[in-house]
Amino acid sequence: MSDNKLTHLDAEGRASMVDVTDKPDTDRRARAQARVYMTPSTLAMIVDGQHPKGDVLAVARVAGIQAAKKTWDLIPLCHPLLLSKIRVELVPEEPGDGATEAVLRIEAECRVKGPTGVEMEALTAVSVAALTVYDMCKAVDRGMHVEGICLLEKTGGRSGEWRR
Amino acid sequence: MSDNKLTHLDAEGRASMVDVTDKPDTDRRARAQARVYMTPSTLAMIVDGQHPKGDVLAVARVAGIQAAKKTWDLIPLCHPLLLSKIRVELVPEEPGDGATEAVLRIEAECRVKGPTGVEMEALTAVSVAALTVYDMCKAVDRGMHVEGICLLEKTGGRSGEWRR
Amino acid sequence: MSDNKLTHLDAEGRASMVDVTDKPDTDRRARAQARVYMTPSTLAMIVDGQHPKGDVLAVARVAGIQAAKKTWDLIPLCHPLLLSKIRVELVPEEPGDGATEAVLRIEAECRVKGPTGVEMEALTAVSVAALTVYDMCKAVDRGMHVEGICLLEKTGGRSGEWRR
Amino acid sequence: MSDNKLTHLDAEGRASMVDVTDKPDTDRRARAQARVYMTPSTLAMIVDGQHPKGDVLAVARVAGIQAAKKTWDLIPLCHPLLLSKIRVELVPEEPGDGATEAVLRIEAECRVKGPTGVEMEALTAVSVAALTVYDMCKAVDRGMHVEGICLLEKTGGRSGEWRR
Amino acid sequence: MSDNKLTHLDAEGRASMVDVTDKPDTDRRARAQARVYMTPSTLAMIVDGQHPKGDVLAVARVAGIQAAKKTWDLIPLCHPLLLSKIRVELVPEEPGDGATEAVLRIEAECRVKGPTGVEMEALTAVSVAALTVYDMCKAVDRGMHVEGICLLEKTGGRSGEWRR
Amino acid sequence: MSDNKLTHLDAEGRASMVDVTDKPDTDRRARAQARVYMTPSTLAMIVDGQHPKGDVLAVARVAGIQAAKKTWDLIPLCHPLLLSKIRVELVPEEPGDGATEAVLRIEAECRVKGPTGVEMEALTAVSVAALTVYDMCKAVDRGMHVEGICLLEKTGGRSGEWRR
Repeated sequence: MSDNKLTHLDAEGRASMVDVTDKPDTDRRARAQARVYMTPSTLAMIVDGQHPKGDVLAVARVAGIQAAKKTWDLIPLCHPLLLSKIRVELVPEEPGDGATEAVLRIEAECRVKGPTGVEMEALTAVSVAALTVYDMCKAVDRGMHVEGICLLEKTGGRSGEWRR
Repeated sequence: MSDNKLTHLDAEGRASMVDVTDKPDTDRRARAQARVYMTPSTLAMIVDGQHPKGDVLAVARVAGIQAAKKTWDLIPLCHPLLLSKIRVELVPEEPGDGATEAVLRIEAECRVKGPTGVEMEALTAVSVAALTVYDMCKAVDRGMHVEGICLLEKTGGRSGEWRR
Repeated sequence: MSDNKLTHLDAEGRASMVDVTDKPDTDRRARAQARVYMTPSTLAMIVDGQHPKGDVLAVARVAGIQAAKKTWDLIPLCHPLLLSKIRVELVPEEPGDGATEAVLRIEAECRVKGPTGVEMEALTAVSVAALTVYDMCKAVDRGMHVEGICLLEKTGGRSGEWRR
Repeated sequence: MSDNKLTHLDAEGRASMVDVTDKPDTDRRARAQARVYMTPSTLAMIVDGQHPKGDVLAVARVAGIQAAKKTWDLIPLCHPLLLSKIRVELVPEEPGDGATEAVLRIEAECRVKGPTGVEMEALTAVSVAALTVYDMCKAVDRGMHVEGICLLEKTGGRSGEWRR
Repeated sequence: MSDNKLTHLDAEGRASMVDVTDKPDTDRRARAQARVYMTPSTLAMIVDGQHPKGDVLAVARVAGIQAAKKTWDLIPLCHPLLLSKIRVELVPEEPGDGATEAVLRIEAECRVKGPTGVEMEALTAVSVAALTVYDMCKAVDRGMHVEGICLLEKTGGRSGEWRR
Repeated sequence: MSDNKLTHLDAEGRASMVDVTDKPDTDRRARAQARVYMTPSTLAMIVDGQHPKGDVLAVARVAGIQAAKKTWDLIPLCHPLLLSKIRVELVPEEPGDGATEAVLRIEAECRVKGPTGVEMEALTAVSVAALTVYDMCKAVDRGMHVEGICLLEKTGGRSGEWRR
């Protein structure tokens, strides 16, 4: 049961930023993903269009990178940390048989040498990149939705490696 | 075809913040949702626990509200605006038959009197609230995932009403 | 009793950002103060020193002004608003008879044409200006303390005028 | 005299962010407090109310934690640092004999392993938590005031331990 | 002489955020520019390269747009305002005869309906876009420099039209 | 050719925040400058005026220091880092023979012990300080312009020392 406690709440259930002063700096890495569902024509406009080519993806990539750096300001109990790497990728998925929606898959990877992990940073990066895609395309496809925001993998730290 | 253009890209595909100077201020409202999937025991810890009761929900609610106010800073081409209302709700869903995962449903509503809509503000609120729930519970349930981030409804503005 | 409710909590006690969409824009003004207590020699260094003259006061004034503009980001349930005036003043007080501590009095005034008041903006300005004074002088006087942070006056809005 | 200089001003009295490049990282800790004065009925509403229970305290706690992380952005000459712990507590004080006002006491503790102290972070946390309490209760008690913002204790660093 | 006063300083030379409460909202527009000097091969890498094509320009454009929205937070005495348009363009200049350096010209245009102008927003946009170009290319050309940051034109407001 | 690559773009030209996890912390330092051109009477007002004395310079100095700390938020692909020193100086230049414009020269120095350099921080400091001078004086001299934003010197890191 004690292994199960929500670490951000103290013994009386009050939120606090967990003390990591005495945890050693280790190399930590996390990968997360999100999938944006849209009409095939919206995805085509993002990917294949002549003039707008690249910019939706470029803007979303920048937005994801910048959001990762602000994770400590967005998620109240996250520790500030010095991200040493942020990579955000947006890749159209091959449509499955009979699929009526198209999917833009977003993946982010973050690294740090520090006392806490970077799961939240990777998750924040993919979430904000996905919202940015929505923002730039909502005029043509208001029904877009984001699914499957999750951690793919983490390494480093006391809890060690974890893979979905 | 002209109805279909991505409004944040100019004729040559370069990102810009759309000119809304000449659009009238109207009463705009948007509702969005997200659903956080977790183990039933995680949801129980959030909802039924004695001491921690309320705090995960309270922290996530605050995080969602604060994030809505920062949407213009997170989503590069969003306009700054003066949100006049933000409401964020987190409600456990009744589990469906045979469900192995439990669901915490998050809904946000935003309002403004302005020249642009508040869809992105509502979507940002639910996304960051969901990430906050993940952050506070990840030590006990790293496999949590967020699904169904989408707009539920918007009213106001030239494009009028929209409902999922 | 209904006059007594904490407006930022809904009927079930959950925090939300109050809906002000339908409140009219009116001219609102607020003044607040704080008083920083220090040793007389610290105050003398701030005020009378030859070279450092003005800079502690100038930096604190800028810090107060900038903080007022960030009030919506610091106080979770504050509405964003377009401050149209911020004035921060720092004035040494005449020492009372037998006083062993000296006092630097800080006053801020904020104005806006909007649907909500600017009390929190004025209070944030004086608080951060006071902390800045502390920061710049703490190496010589760690026992400094801040007293009497309060609203002096507000005008405008449905609740009308209020004076301490 | 050299012991007395205001460290944030250079020889000509101009503000600068002090050079700490060559100071070693040590374990630093600081505790600060603030006391919010209000009517006994306001404190009762915060503490004893059935529905709103906890939320004023929960929101203020989150606000204090988040503000501590932004200290470097609020106090112009503070160094950025990686806070490793933030704890904010809000506790009603036992009223003294004949007291006509009630008091909510706020205490914050911050830690870091770094070249500079965290006094300002602890002071910022209590100040913003106090302002948040004011904001949430001002509709029922505009005369609330904040007293006694001060450092309680610091440890670590060249100047060593200090206790009020 | 009275026409000559520095408006951000009060009668005693202290900084304050000028009172614009009583100024009417008018349509204001400003254009500013900056010019980044670099080696011809650096400019060629930015513009003609196969793989990196577009991205330096896309990232700088996003950075300029986002910075414009933060002007009130960067320039201490600027008023917050609701930018209704931001456009940032980066265009390689035709090299003059015998020029040994190449030039990337950056232009920004901002608009608002408000009581104050948007000169600082346009100037901030070009400055940060220029710094972003420097950042992305500094590994190959540390000697790059930025020249000619200036206002090109402003319209609206009491002081009316101004053109360089 | 490989020496020439733009380090912030990956092999396919997409922006990413370069991985510095495995680079050692070293003592890094950078100095940058900017020069603000104005009418001689504007410079005289800044420097020689009786009452406003010092404040334009003091505000610009604070603005430059605070901006340096936000470089990671302004320049999309910059790493967050813990600046250990920021110094910003504003010095009127001796006018050259026959000069019709006066010049305020701004210099900034930043230091950090870290895996990446602080060139962008020093450049951001001088740029924002220069914009702040423009803002405070634009009512009397709208034709002011900023020239010569450049790196003066950097030390530390794998690429070693560099001097203009």
